[in-house]
Amino acid sequence: MRSDPLTDVLTPGLPDEAFDHDGQLTKREIRALTLAALAPRPGELLWDVGAGSGSIGIEWLRANPTGRAVAFERDPERAGRIARNRDALGAPGLRVVVGDAPDVFDTSDLAPDAVFIGGGLTVPGMVERCWAALRPGGRLVANAVTVETEAEIVRERALLGGELTRIQISRSTPVGRFTGWRASMPVTQWIVTRPAAVDPAPGRSADEAVHVAEESRP
Amino acid sequence: MRSDPLTDVLTPGLPDEAFDHDGQLTKREIRALTLAALAPRPGELLWDVGAGSGSIGIEWLRANPTGRAVAFERDPERAGRIARNRDALGAPGLRVVVGDAPDVFDTSDLAPDAVFIGGGLTVPGMVERCWAALRPGGRLVANAVTVETEAEIVRERALLGGELTRIQISRSTPVGRFTGWRASMPVTQWIVTRPAAVDPAPGRSADEAVHVAEESRP
Amino acid sequence: MRSDPLTDVLTPGLPDEAFDHDGQLTKREIRALTLAALAPRPGELLWDVGAGSGSIGIEWLRANPTGRAVAFERDPERAGRIARNRDALGAPGLRVVVGDAPDVFDTSDLAPDAVFIGGGLTVPGMVERCWAALRPGGRLVANAVTVETEAEIVRERALLGGELTRIQISRSTPVGRFTGWRASMPVTQWIVTRPAAVDPAPGRSADEAVHVAEESRP
Amino acid sequence: MRSDPLTDVLTPGLPDEAFDHDGQLTKREIRALTLAALAPRPGELLWDVGAGSGSIGIEWLRANPTGRAVAFERDPERAGRIARNRDALGAPGLRVVVGDAPDVFDTSDLAPDAVFIGGGLTVPGMVERCWAALRPGGRLVANAVTVETEAEIVRERALLGGELTRIQISRSTPVGRFTGWRASMPVTQWIVTRPAAVDPAPGRSADEAVHVAEESRP
Repeated sequence: MRSDPLTDVLTPGLPDEAFDHDGQLTKREIRALTLAALAPRPGELLWDVGAGSGSIGIEWLRANPTGRAVAFERDPERAGRIARNRDALGAPGLRVVVGDAPDVFDTSDLAPDAVFIGGGLTVPGMVERCWAALRPGGRLVANAVTVETEAEIVRERALLGGELTRIQISRSTPVGRFTGWRASMPVTQWIVTRPAAVDPAPGRSADEAVHVAEESRP
Repeated sequence: MRSDPLTDVLTPGLPDEAFDHDGQLTKREIRALTLAALAPRPGELLWDVGAGSGSIGIEWLRANPTGRAVAFERDPERAGRIARNRDALGAPGLRVVVGDAPDVFDTSDLAPDAVFIGGGLTVPGMVERCWAALRPGGRLVANAVTVETEAEIVRERALLGGELTRIQISRSTPVGRFTGWRASMPVTQWIVTRPAAVDPAPGRSADEAVHVAEESRP
Repeated sequence: MRSDPLTDVLTPGLPDEAFDHDGQLTKREIRALTLAALAPRPGELLWDVGAGSGSIGIEWLRANPTGRAVAFERDPERAGRIARNRDALGAPGLRVVVGDAPDVFDTSDLAPDAVFIGGGLTVPGMVERCWAALRPGGRLVANAVTVETEAEIVRERALLGGELTRIQISRSTPVGRFTGWRASMPVTQWIVTRPAAVDPAPGRSADEAVHVAEESRP
Repeated sequence: MRSDPLTDVLTPGLPDEAFDHDGQLTKREIRALTLAALAPRPGELLWDVGAGSGSIGIEWLRANPTGRAVAFERDPERAGRIARNRDALGAPGLRVVVGDAPDVFDTSDLAPDAVFIGGGLTVPGMVERCWAALRPGGRLVANAVTVETEAEIVRERALLGGELTRIQISRSTPVGRFTGWRASMPVTQWIVTRPAAVDPAPGRSADEAVHVAEESRP
């Protein structure tokens, strides 16, 4: 006999219908690519910032049973939904923190190995605070779906480096008795790894930006 | 201390550089999405048809340590490369079969739970033979990068059903002192699940096609 | 004083709102690119096959005041709409023929310099009859928006040659207080020029296909 | 007898090969769409800013024999090339001004009916000066191919309004014995019409921005 196929599947990219959501959901394909970019390793800690339905933290823990994850979400109703999705989809270790990022980061005292920014990219200080919190060698991944957040990513990348990928997914859809393509909004994904060691010598460099960011942490 | 990061990563979508390849490689993002579509469950068997560098079978086994996978590849040099990638990337269970698909399928007596067609889509009988071999309830995934193979997928889908997704990945690239986008060739992905039970009643239907296909198996 | 801006504009690509239509309208950007592909020259004759709202023939005549154009449309209601658009948009020379293409081509005794197929690509014999009617050196342009018609274009191009272009247009759209992208369905455009002179020597070649096509004309 | 087909064609979107260029050329399809966006009317004046090979000004004049056009280009070698293209392609009225935009605009005393910014979008004051020069009711069109210039367009649009369109063109290309797609870099096009009349009442509005811009003109 076969158990619930959703619980069994071993790769990220669950169907969207697997999640209770209000539209704020990283869609299946983008979610699979986000998990590939986050590249979890055993025991690692993820911050899922602007967690929405919690899908990224949940898939992180499904792929990484010894790992840990924190979902930051300012909306209490959404936070409750995240908890329900967590319980339904086998990710009991997901911790849900309700509050405004980045201020609410102060409640977390462990440096994450990976940070995903799914919402709140344009909140002042958001990227800086995430970058400052990240452990050296850790990964920051941010998805932008609007021109304004894409522009923010471009600005941040000029300071911090990393790579940009633009992802367009179209799905077949009936057109009369034929088949056309309905395109989802393109997503621009920024992937950047924080340098493993900070150069102690001063200078106008990316390393210096890291250094400054670190000093600004409480 | 941290071991080889490539060996550690828990989600599909290894960097392309992780594989020894001659250009015949399903690229990172497409690979991650292909694994999401194949949706491995514990213990399941994959056929990787036209395996090229073996990346799909290797990522299947990395995500599914109790699973099994067979890579079919007609080119002996590529088959040797698949074996080397398998050994380097921690997928010792991958079986490599050298020969022309679909004829070489006769050497496999177990019905796969999932079939991926990465090459050879236009070889006569290829899709039919893969479909016939697939266990009821199993998944067939095929990727097309040319208009001819996309047209073949469209024809087969009219018979067998399933969904089409078109995936376009662009990567940031320097343009003078600015940043432009270099697009990869779009990939059309066909995902279809073989019905779990075949309708015994005759009729001109998709079910009948399944039935005929089954009878044609050796 | 300034007259009606629509009547004045000298380049193809009128706003969609300029046309009375029922959804069967080649959209602004695709229309501008279709006119560029059709490349009208003074005095030339266009066939607009499956004319829908008549926009291609109308823009042809606006760009080409000494030219001629025939709109073939099987639906009488649409044919009436074409006539109204023609009169409103300053293209009085557009001739509207109601009937099923390609059969209705028999009513036209002049070889067109350019043929546009906007609808009916999958009607048996459609491309062959258009190609056969085209004067040597003339251009055939066909737009496909579905996978089935794209597959048809791929098949025809294998016989007749020419180039394929895929065009994707996205428009900015509000996403909350930000700006996202809403993509139109991609259009695949086939542009092929009929060889100016037919090679008299026999052989299994594209030229032979042309030769056969010519002989089949009434 | 048929004269030079390039000289004869009545719609914008000449083949790229028609122009002598060093790579700085608005490609055929984008050029056709740019001319559609510029929407020339009889007698109107175009500024082609950062003119490169001069193709936009040349196609403007080909479509608009009673119109006028100025090509601003800072590079003398390119300016010479523009002049040669002008002479070869039948646009003798194109005036070529060598110098750095926007400073060089001071040499032009007529308000343009349309302005195209093909290069120099990130030069400080460029958009403001073009907007200020534009006659009320005139059109500004700018094309961005990099993320930085796209971000600039997003910023300017927040102030001045208008619409954004993203255009992706792919061309068929051989893949072995099959046919794949080679995508050009996507172009984001901004089209905005300057309000015909400026609201005299003060306030923090787009109208105020227009007003301020006007006062800053010499």
